[in-house]
Amino acid sequence: MEVTRLLHITLLITLLLYFCQAYNYETYFYKQKVDHFSFADPDTFNLRYLINDDFWDGNGGPIFFYAGNEGDITLFADNTGFMWDIAPEFNALVIFAEHRYYGVSLPYGNDSFTKLKYTGYLTSEQALADYVELITYLKSAIDGAKNSTVVAFGGSYGGMLAAWFRMKYPHVVQGAIASSAPILQFTDITPCEDFGKLVTADFSKESPECANVIRNSWAAIDSVTRNEAGLAWLTQAWSLCKPLKTPQDITSLKNYLVNVWTNLAMVDYPYPANFLAPLPAYPIKACTEMVMPFCYNGVEDFFEPAPWDFKSFAQTCYQTWGVYPRPFMAVHMYGGKDISAASNIVFTNGLLDPWSTGGVLWNVSETVVSLIIPEGAHHLDLRGSNPDDPPSVIQARMIEKTHIQNWIDEYSARYDE
Amino acid sequence: MEVTRLLHITLLITLLLYFCQAYNYETYFYKQKVDHFSFADPDTFNLRYLINDDFWDGNGGPIFFYAGNEGDITLFADNTGFMWDIAPEFNALVIFAEHRYYGVSLPYGNDSFTKLKYTGYLTSEQALADYVELITYLKSAIDGAKNSTVVAFGGSYGGMLAAWFRMKYPHVVQGAIASSAPILQFTDITPCEDFGKLVTADFSKESPECANVIRNSWAAIDSVTRNEAGLAWLTQAWSLCKPLKTPQDITSLKNYLVNVWTNLAMVDYPYPANFLAPLPAYPIKACTEMVMPFCYNGVEDFFEPAPWDFKSFAQTCYQTWGVYPRPFMAVHMYGGKDISAASNIVFTNGLLDPWSTGGVLWNVSETVVSLIIPEGAHHLDLRGSNPDDPPSVIQARMIEKTHIQNWIDEYSARYDE
Repeated sequence: MEVTRLLHITLLITLLLYFCQAYNYETYFYKQKVDHFSFADPDTFNLRYLINDDFWDGNGGPIFFYAGNEGDITLFADNTGFMWDIAPEFNALVIFAEHRYYGVSLPYGNDSFTKLKYTGYLTSEQALADYVELITYLKSAIDGAKNSTVVAFGGSYGGMLAAWFRMKYPHVVQGAIASSAPILQFTDITPCEDFGKLVTADFSKESPECANVIRNSWAAIDSVTRNEAGLAWLTQAWSLCKPLKTPQDITSLKNYLVNVWTNLAMVDYPYPANFLAPLPAYPIKACTEMVMPFCYNGVEDFFEPAPWDFKSFAQTCYQTWGVYPRPFMAVHMYGGKDISAASNIVFTNGLLDPWSTGGVLWNVSETVVSLIIPEGAHHLDLRGSNPDDPPSVIQARMIEKTHIQNWIDEYSARYDE
Repeated sequence: MEVTRLLHITLLITLLLYFCQAYNYETYFYKQKVDHFSFADPDTFNLRYLINDDFWDGNGGPIFFYAGNEGDITLFADNTGFMWDIAPEFNALVIFAEHRYYGVSLPYGNDSFTKLKYTGYLTSEQALADYVELITYLKSAIDGAKNSTVVAFGGSYGGMLAAWFRMKYPHVVQGAIASSAPILQFTDITPCEDFGKLVTADFSKESPECANVIRNSWAAIDSVTRNEAGLAWLTQAWSLCKPLKTPQDITSLKNYLVNVWTNLAMVDYPYPANFLAPLPAYPIKACTEMVMPFCYNGVEDFFEPAPWDFKSFAQTCYQTWGVYPRPFMAVHMYGGKDISAASNIVFTNGLLDPWSTGGVLWNVSETVVSLIIPEGAHHLDLRGSNPDDPPSVIQARMIEKTHIQNWIDEYSARYDE
């Protein structure tokens, strides 16, 4: 009797655990070369990927591939409901690949960030090459996947990767859904002040007074923290974990606030979402190729005035990592604004999302299109469908599905003859 | 009197030297990163390039860019007459860039080939990235070049580079002339025996008897070199520089003959040409990514039977260089046969050229076309025009010019608005 009840409870817990996991997948690892472009470094490491074949048509059904970005891949798997929502309809195999140097995919384990010799392989070019090798392997290893159409998905920096993946490796990826992908947020392409302006506009829309309060807050913080009493008062009033003491503490506090306002604008979803943490204001803070210029003037935006100072930025990078960033690397590699030769990419941009200032907001060609979601925040369209979704995002997802179907039809036609 | 005569003679010699140089160019160097794709190696080196602006329309005229391949770049400049022939007509700036690790463009000087740490950056991906950086720099540095259309040219491995250059960096190169570019001569794409068959066919066409003599020569060499007297006789009869002694000497002799027959088939030009030396049978013998499988059966071809043995090849590479080759690297990187997403490439193939077995021999799309030159040898179309040119090569060059003009018109239209 007791045993039966125990079994019941165990079963219940198992079921609860199963259904509480937002989505279901198995975890694997694939051995990757640390350096895909040269032969000087023979090292390898294990890249994590998640896979689900519940809905898959094992006879050539498509592969939906999430191009992992800066974060633990399980977070992206749990927060990219769109792929899960439409996988059954397309009978798709669902794969999430982790970005090297994130989650557990650390090329040199715990030493990965200890010196440049180890950290230096954290670039988008190497990450894309990881995905090329992984997909090529899976298509040959999984029965029935040989002729499968591969559709890349990605949001934010992952969206940039998805778009670049299609541009650089069209033989591996037949189309890409690039959501809130700021591929134009680079030097000499997008004015550095646009980002801050849009963050401010988001707040002003709700309440112009609110934006003004934030704009005035920087001077107020300076003023109140000029003496010991003020420092103590602010520490207490804002329940800070550590007491404010040095000028560096004040700078950190301000940086924290900049991130808070920015993140709030980015995740201005029409419903509550627990997806704030993994979104840094600057994708891949690595001081290498992702040099995205930001500046604030405090007039058209509500931030403390701060010019974009590449020299000082580069100097800090060198002092911290021993590396000088290459601000034009991504533009030279991927083309910046000149993506006229690309094909089969859907760019989506929520106009509430400050990253949309660096997004592709025009139709490049018949197959490289831009969908605007006026009420959308940071890659809202990639989230699972929700009763509170505005019509614009529902429509965007419909159009994305049409493109995906076209890519599948086009690619499958090769093998139907 | 004597002084005047001396001056005359000096002037004469100077003029002679000037006009004996086939083409006229200035030599420059550009500082390149050894590793364009990571930040672990901060080293740089000087890449040589040649430039001629005699014909250039300095107000946006096009740039003709030769993607240097395995050899001293001056050799390619002197043997690519087609570019020089048509530069005046297009008012083009002519640039020849040297391939890293060749000529004087040695990343680690005389030590470049001493260890893998230095040699490991000899890959096509790195070479293309050199060209990206060079062109981007030149377009910004040369007055009037900012909006210039860039057309890439290349023959053989240089043709592969030209085609891949357009595929990977369409924002840098608006079109490519890829002559005798065996981009399909890789594992699992082109049967390894095709190359040898075509070499044999070239000889059989002239004289079936000749092919048979060569086919029987291998056994004859074995037979005659079985004893000391035979070895001595062959050494003398063929006027060899070093006496034949060991089995390795026999193998070397045979390899030399294989190269001779292959090169003769490749440079089967309709007129004498001094361009044999820089054409190795295997482009970039470096044991890295350019793994091109060749095999001979001695029946359909006239070579000594030799299966393709990747394992032993890889073993030799490891013993010699400490590196295992990656036979699928180029296919994964560039797509192998699947180049359907490419645009603006003209592939030309001479059917006398054994490398045409690995060439693109079909029209991929409206803008990626294949021109067949039945009487053509190895990139005959890239050579300067010659009274003995067959009509097919004259026609091919006409079509190439039409495509180049289209690319220029298309790209220039962006800036005319």
